[in-house]
Amino acid sequence: MKIVFHGQNAGGFRHGFGALVGPGHEIVHVGDLLDGPGEAAQFAAAEVLIGTRLDASMPRLERLRLYHAPAAGTDMIDTARLPAGAALCNCHGHEFAIAEYVFAALLAPHVPLSGADADLRRGEWTYWAGRPNALRTELGSQTIGLLGFGHIAQAIARCARAFGMRVHAANRSPVRSADVDRAFALPELHDFLASVDIAVVTLPLVPETQGIVDAAALAAMRPGAVLVNVARGPVVDEQALYDALRRRHLGRAVIDTWYRYPTPAQPVCAPSRLDFAALDNVLMTPHMSGWTEGTVRRRQQTMADNIRRLDQGQPLVNRLQ
Amino acid sequence: MKIVFHGQNAGGFRHGFGALVGPGHEIVHVGDLLDGPGEAAQFAAAEVLIGTRLDASMPRLERLRLYHAPAAGTDMIDTARLPAGAALCNCHGHEFAIAEYVFAALLAPHVPLSGADADLRRGEWTYWAGRPNALRTELGSQTIGLLGFGHIAQAIARCARAFGMRVHAANRSPVRSADVDRAFALPELHDFLASVDIAVVTLPLVPETQGIVDAAALAAMRPGAVLVNVARGPVVDEQALYDALRRRHLGRAVIDTWYRYPTPAQPVCAPSRLDFAALDNVLMTPHMSGWTEGTVRRRQQTMADNIRRLDQGQPLVNRLQ
Repeated sequence: MKIVFHGQNAGGFRHGFGALVGPGHEIVHVGDLLDGPGEAAQFAAAEVLIGTRLDASMPRLERLRLYHAPAAGTDMIDTARLPAGAALCNCHGHEFAIAEYVFAALLAPHVPLSGADADLRRGEWTYWAGRPNALRTELGSQTIGLLGFGHIAQAIARCARAFGMRVHAANRSPVRSADVDRAFALPELHDFLASVDIAVVTLPLVPETQGIVDAAALAAMRPGAVLVNVARGPVVDEQALYDALRRRHLGRAVIDTWYRYPTPAQPVCAPSRLDFAALDNVLMTPHMSGWTEGTVRRRQQTMADNIRRLDQGQPLVNRLQ
Repeated sequence: MKIVFHGQNAGGFRHGFGALVGPGHEIVHVGDLLDGPGEAAQFAAAEVLIGTRLDASMPRLERLRLYHAPAAGTDMIDTARLPAGAALCNCHGHEFAIAEYVFAALLAPHVPLSGADADLRRGEWTYWAGRPNALRTELGSQTIGLLGFGHIAQAIARCARAFGMRVHAANRSPVRSADVDRAFALPELHDFLASVDIAVVTLPLVPETQGIVDAAALAAMRPGAVLVNVARGPVVDEQALYDALRRRHLGRAVIDTWYRYPTPAQPVCAPSRLDFAALDNVLMTPHMSGWTEGTVRRRQQTMADNIRRLDQGQPLVNRLQ
């Protein structure tokens, strides 16, 4: 089959893919803008397209049998552009990476490693056990709330439980997990948010979830609580998030997913129309939480396995349509 | 009973202890040096002594029934100074705190949060998923080795497993835990160390463990491996550790427990006769890993429960002699 990797993000999954998928395939990689010699024609001839963005600026995919996102989110893929009968699949495998990101970000304020190291290099034992004012707070004594309970939330729940945290979850479908102490339905969102010290947004971005964490939802959170967004920016209302941080109703936010993204034409850009960079109670990261060597390896395997299934007429996994 | 808290470290457990232990006790707090008015006499009259250090410079404890360390380690307590029949007990409850310290220290190099935040505040999406050179390594793909398998190691094993790590353990007594993939006996120390990416020292300091991680043991570790010591400094040979870091055979060390400690007379001091502060591949912290509000709360409960048991003639828990 003709397998086309489209764009820089998909290109990150190209290396070593030939060996995984086996012989008998033509594999090409084309740029985001399809403006290189012959790239538009290569794109148009794809039977399998691996990419993250499909819109009306791109050629029609008349021969396409499978559009495979090398990611979980497919909100930038206009499914109306897929030919009849073509499958759309996504990938997970990022849940371990995201759990590492979340706990690195959550643990850091509780364990003052850098300050302790700098002091001890000068012979100052500032944080020595038993010293007045050296007593740390403990992440494990807190309650974490997982908004959405898919792969990412389940990985976070396992870690949270291992650290001794209480775990709450709110989800559309019922939550059945030994790692969850208390489950809420989505209409109980405000009660859920009021019950936790840390809320982690992991919902997919669909019309029903756009802006679901709005000003009223943030107001329902405990003063000083922490909001983490590793889902998609617009699941959290942009203005309401900024206001809740500026007024310090939220103690802290860890925001990895945003409202504006760079484009090939504009590679340097602020992640919001609002000046989050002026706030000192937000940790701002560039949609990096899931991007590890392990994630790439796991997703390559998912995509190679699906191409083999397509070849053999077997049902695909992670099929969205 | 007369309950005496001795020194600054023990004093950290004094607040709120009266309410926990209940009525009918006299509770006093004396300083490390026992040089305040009447302090030596208060010390000598203790029926329960809560402290971390007992030596020949201190008065005899003729009436003592229970010496309770508010900590796990009792290597600074000269048990020959305890009167016949007096019990020695210790406390755990620090294992959750130490696991948080260990994973904060282990995750940080894999997740470049500070750099990503600083860049994004300037509109630079350096670590954006899909970017060349943005791909992170993953802690979860590594093997962690736990030297010793008591409370601390078991808490670390639970977290390591939740992050998807392989877990090896080496211990005097056989290890039986669903969280351990491979167990070694202590005589297999070199094979154990050669099998892991990260070794965490959690052994108590006793004559048989002093310097057990020596030059030959460190040489058995994989080049670039990470050593973490949250046990007691001298379990790891001081000169051998320094040399393995200076020669960069060890990729990194996270050292919380040391070879020299401050005294009331000399509060500022380097933690070793060797110049660890000149090394850039060591994270140096001042014996802080277990010191959290949660640890204090859990240990207060252990000590109050043991005093109640002593009062009622019941067997004590965590009794060492």
